Amino acid sequence: MAEKQRITLAAIAAEAGVSLATMSKVLNGRTDVAPATRARLEEHLARHGYTRRKVSQRSEFVELVFHELESSWSMEVIEGVEDVAHAAGLSVVLTVSGDRHSPDPHWIDGVLRRRPAGVVLVFSEISGPQREKLHSRGVPFVIVDPAGDPSPDVPSVGSANWTGGLMATRHLIELGHHRIAAITGPEDMMCSLARIDGYRSAMNAAGLDIDPEWIRFGDFHPGGGERHARELLAMPDPPTAIFAGSDLQALGAIAAATDAGLRVPDDLSVVGYDDIALARWMSPQLTTIHQPLRRMGEEATRLVLRLAEGASVDTLRMDLATHLVVRGSTAPPPVG
Amino acid sequence: MAEKQRITLAAIAAEAGVSLATMSKVLNGRTDVAPATRARLEEHLARHGYTRRKVSQRSEFVELVFHELESSWSMEVIEGVEDVAHAAGLSVVLTVSGDRHSPDPHWIDGVLRRRPAGVVLVFSEISGPQREKLHSRGVPFVIVDPAGDPSPDVPSVGSANWTGGLMATRHLIELGHHRIAAITGPEDMMCSLARIDGYRSAMNAAGLDIDPEWIRFGDFHPGGGERHARELLAMPDPPTAIFAGSDLQALGAIAAATDAGLRVPDDLSVVGYDDIALARWMSPQLTTIHQPLRRMGEEATRLVLRLAEGASVDTLRMDLATHLVVRGSTAPPPVG
Repeated sequence: MAEKQRITLAAIAAEAGVSLATMSKVLNGRTDVAPATRARLEEHLARHGYTRRKVSQRSEFVELVFHELESSWSMEVIEGVEDVAHAAGLSVVLTVSGDRHSPDPHWIDGVLRRRPAGVVLVFSEISGPQREKLHSRGVPFVIVDPAGDPSPDVPSVGSANWTGGLMATRHLIELGHHRIAAITGPEDMMCSLARIDGYRSAMNAAGLDIDPEWIRFGDFHPGGGERHARELLAMPDPPTAIFAGSDLQALGAIAAATDAGLRVPDDLSVVGYDDIALARWMSPQLTTIHQPLRRMGEEATRLVLRLAEGASVDTLRMDLATHLVVRGSTAPPPVG
Repeated sequence: MAEKQRITLAAIAAEAGVSLATMSKVLNGRTDVAPATRARLEEHLARHGYTRRKVSQRSEFVELVFHELESSWSMEVIEGVEDVAHAAGLSVVLTVSGDRHSPDPHWIDGVLRRRPAGVVLVFSEISGPQREKLHSRGVPFVIVDPAGDPSPDVPSVGSANWTGGLMATRHLIELGHHRIAAITGPEDMMCSLARIDGYRSAMNAAGLDIDPEWIRFGDFHPGGGERHARELLAMPDPPTAIFAGSDLQALGAIAAATDAGLRVPDDLSVVGYDDIALARWMSPQLTTIHQPLRRMGEEATRLVLRLAEGASVDTLRMDLATHLVVRGSTAPPPVG
């Protein structure tokens, strides 16, 4: 094998009939080479046993960027990233910066100085110029649960949001609910839209009408859940069940119900989303959609490290499965 | 002022009648110089306007080390550290490593390579050899809520645990409770012991006996709270109130009470500890001792950066105040 390594990258490029620049892009895990071309060139590299220098010789960091830290949710992602990075001998540089659209402009300078193996962005996008700079240095990035609708060449790890919305709503319908409201996240986030679409599909499939007032976009915090639930419960013909966009929103909805003198699940059913570690310790224990947050962090880190090594990556978008966890916050609707 | 800076450190040392090595130690924020000597030498430095090179020229990291990440608790500390580091133009390297006694042995090699401005350890100690290595490189460290009983020259930030235990117990006594149990953390942690001592003092001051069975050492997780509470509630003459060592343990205790057919707070009062962000969103809302976790992270980072700059530090141990937050999980004991 040592002998095989002696061939130059230029020679392999010549053999494959592409420029050294293109071959170098593929080697460095860049995503601006057409997938078919990349696959072909990777075969050439593999045949010659040509690999990029190991990550550990090149960098000792993985960059992890949040635009905000939200207690239970973020921690599980951090654990996943830290675990995989640690196993690869890398340290995690944690940054809380910017907004959903990109980290703040100074962040990129630090990244270019530190030359990380890769960047994992959570719930955020990355601006065009930032992306260019990372590309030109051969620093790959992966987005966990992208906020917007990233172009197909942006590597990302998410979960099955549409299916989650569908399963949550179906569970409520099977319990006998007809008037089901949905509180979700911001309207400009893919995951919010996908969950609401899952909710709509379940309602439509069951032949149930949706009052437009029942669909609420908000944030993922308890306060927003409480506010929307209070408004929903004050309607003349209030819903008997609420599908919340996060476990925290579900807590807010339960607080609003308690304030209104309603018991959960006897008078109102509530389904959460995420299945944070505390969900089973709530009273009532939360029925929720399990989102594999820790695994999303792990997979994003594995993907970025594979890209950093110039390894072949079959797919740049990975959606992990979600599933329904039935606990104590859902029940058949009150009679009458 | 520019002129004043021209004097050499050796000249200041000579003027103060100490070796250059000692003066250098003080400048580098090392803690192995007697406090009185350090204070005197810092006056000399200050008079000449002599300061160490700025942190930003020297390092771009603060190291943050946890031995385990626990969702709600850790996140608030991380936010505090990140906020102060970010404002100082530094990035946070997050490591989850080792146990309560020290990070794992490889961790120190990475730290020495990265040459951080300082190290913030959470809920952990640091081994003798690791401490020596940090000292010899002039890398200061600060411990947040030390697990054991650190020697007085170890800089640390904690909170008023004894007072917290006293206030929680007094609140229950004022509500009319006589049979009050306490579930706390591991027996080898200062904070656990201090809280239990506060509990004892409140009970003694009120002339109330303590059944030794009522005092439980465990972990700070919900499962431990549930297990201990189940045992307490199964006693022939069970307590009417439980003071838990963390909000998570309190959730576990409430779950055990619910399982036993008891209502909180009507049949059993529960006081938590920490006041995590979710405490007010629980049902019932948790009565708890507010521990300023975010501020503990902030102060620890400020302290380590002051030490890194060689600034004068009046005290190496800082305990932030705790206070009682009365919500819905406590009430007078059931009649009879």
